[in-house]
Amino acid sequence: MQNKEIRFRSRPAGMPTADNFQFIDAEVPQPNDGELLVRTLYLSVDPYLRGRMREGRSYVEPFEVGQVIESGGVGEVVESRSPKFQPGEIVTGMFGWRLYNVLKAVALMKVYAFTGPAASGNAGDPPAPVPVSTALGVLGMPGLTAYFGLLDIGKPKEGETVVVSGAAGAVGMTVCQIAKIKGCRTVGIAGSDEKNQYLRDELGVDEAINYKTADIPEALKSASPNGVDVYFDNVGGEVSDAVLPLLNKGARIIICGQISIYNLDKPDLGLRPQPYLLVKSGLMQGFIITDYAPKFSEGVMQLARWLAEGKLKYAETIVEGFENTPQAFIGLFSGDNLGKQIVKV
Amino acid sequence: MQNKEIRFRSRPAGMPTADNFQFIDAEVPQPNDGELLVRTLYLSVDPYLRGRMREGRSYVEPFEVGQVIESGGVGEVVESRSPKFQPGEIVTGMFGWRLYNVLKAVALMKVYAFTGPAASGNAGDPPAPVPVSTALGVLGMPGLTAYFGLLDIGKPKEGETVVVSGAAGAVGMTVCQIAKIKGCRTVGIAGSDEKNQYLRDELGVDEAINYKTADIPEALKSASPNGVDVYFDNVGGEVSDAVLPLLNKGARIIICGQISIYNLDKPDLGLRPQPYLLVKSGLMQGFIITDYAPKFSEGVMQLARWLAEGKLKYAETIVEGFENTPQAFIGLFSGDNLGKQIVKV
Repeated sequence: MQNKEIRFRSRPAGMPTADNFQFIDAEVPQPNDGELLVRTLYLSVDPYLRGRMREGRSYVEPFEVGQVIESGGVGEVVESRSPKFQPGEIVTGMFGWRLYNVLKAVALMKVYAFTGPAASGNAGDPPAPVPVSTALGVLGMPGLTAYFGLLDIGKPKEGETVVVSGAAGAVGMTVCQIAKIKGCRTVGIAGSDEKNQYLRDELGVDEAINYKTADIPEALKSASPNGVDVYFDNVGGEVSDAVLPLLNKGARIIICGQISIYNLDKPDLGLRPQPYLLVKSGLMQGFIITDYAPKFSEGVMQLARWLAEGKLKYAETIVEGFENTPQAFIGLFSGDNLGKQIVKV
Repeated sequence: MQNKEIRFRSRPAGMPTADNFQFIDAEVPQPNDGELLVRTLYLSVDPYLRGRMREGRSYVEPFEVGQVIESGGVGEVVESRSPKFQPGEIVTGMFGWRLYNVLKAVALMKVYAFTGPAASGNAGDPPAPVPVSTALGVLGMPGLTAYFGLLDIGKPKEGETVVVSGAAGAVGMTVCQIAKIKGCRTVGIAGSDEKNQYLRDELGVDEAINYKTADIPEALKSASPNGVDVYFDNVGGEVSDAVLPLLNKGARIIICGQISIYNLDKPDLGLRPQPYLLVKSGLMQGFIITDYAPKFSEGVMQLARWLAEGKLKYAETIVEGFENTPQAFIGLFSGDNLGKQIVKV
């Protein structure tokens, strides 16, 4: 067995490039008591990792130059020195970008196999297995982020209008569907007509706006004739500015991500939302999913139930090959992905 | 009896001027059943009235050109056609800017006389009467705004740092004192050294910053060595921008006013707060005091209790003469007032 790892070679200035990453051949490490040797099956690449590439703390500790990058992963237990796990079991947790990691048993969760609705969509057909990669998407951090952000902060009520930016990403498409489950008029904003067709035809979103080609303020106004009650913000910047004049009394804005500015190396100037929040008694709340850690199992169970009932769909964009991990990450910033961007190792 | 009234002559462009107001001689009106004739004793002038001078709805209906301006008032009942009130009683509610108003009994509250701590501050001295004008300030809308905004949205905890802009205004100085009552390190921002001396020496604020002369980001940083947990925002603009980088995890920002931009006739551009709220799981919430109407009596009782106990002080800047009402309003935007700006009619 040969190990490989991807180290953080240099901090990006603006958009990350392949040069910020370095591939190294390494030894397969040995687990100690309480640890497992895990073969990586899937790695998650996520926009928030850009924040860790900055110097100085954001949500979480920054990566040090020279360290192995880490993100969510799914893998198979090769060797276990913990009674909690057996070889052959599938686990998820934070993984180094390596072919083989030694990981602490206490920091891992087992991924349970279950089946969802028939792939054909026909009720009589046999159910399809839900792949273990969903532990990185709809049943993992992105799904939980959508679930707690929308329900706990957004508190959508039947008949209200929910606007979602980054709507075709892993978080956004889950938000759109939960908003529909809750009986809301749902407006998605995404970056291509193909994505928007998917949002409308597959996910049942009421209106979808292509922010690259539409007059955003006009399109949002016409898509939200009763104003906006909840805005789930994954992107920030001018797209989010356009929502502010449409807010209804008591509107809630969930600040989940600001991908449009992660590569900015200066302060983000634009429309101040304070006057809009003032006149509408509006709320704007940032959060990080780890704030909800004590309630994760409740969230996963509800998401899995909706998935098994066919009320919730997911999409994955899978890049094959460990060597393509940096490119899969970089592609997030040009919106290459529909749904969850995953690397199949 | 001769009546006089002040009408809204024209919408201001930028800063309001005397030309936007018109004085008219009028008849003293006659009350119908359920109404009172009330002689105006005090009128409140408030920054939020600027919003009503715009076309289009903000919090409340805009003033129509030609109508009599209205704001909070305190007056004496001259004639009553309601069993609820007797001539000679003192009432408060929304008043037209008139010497005499006919007002509906259901929209008025009686102002009760009570006494506060000795004016000398010495415990043995006899208590001083609390003037009825406080119904427009510490025991009225500004006091309630401070009370519910800080406690319900800000939820300050002992030992936290609370920053207050517009700290020497009617709302701000009450916020500062409630923050001290709750055991918080309290930093006030106001527009003169005299105001700041008052905040420190009379109200016990820990640090006071003169936004007209200080390097605001530097001064805020040095005044808030443990970061900022609660920011009560009365002003908006660059003062508020400077607070954002200092926010602690879970910070709460109360958007109470944005006086720095009320006279802007274009969108307010500046530092977007979303990225700061994101990384700190921060909350920003706008409100209008009428959201709390069902809890007003709870708030007034607590404020009156603190006042009677000497834990809460107030200041009033009183302009004498009905004819000076417009100028008292205009002066709010240059920060002429310490505490509540009132017109004694």
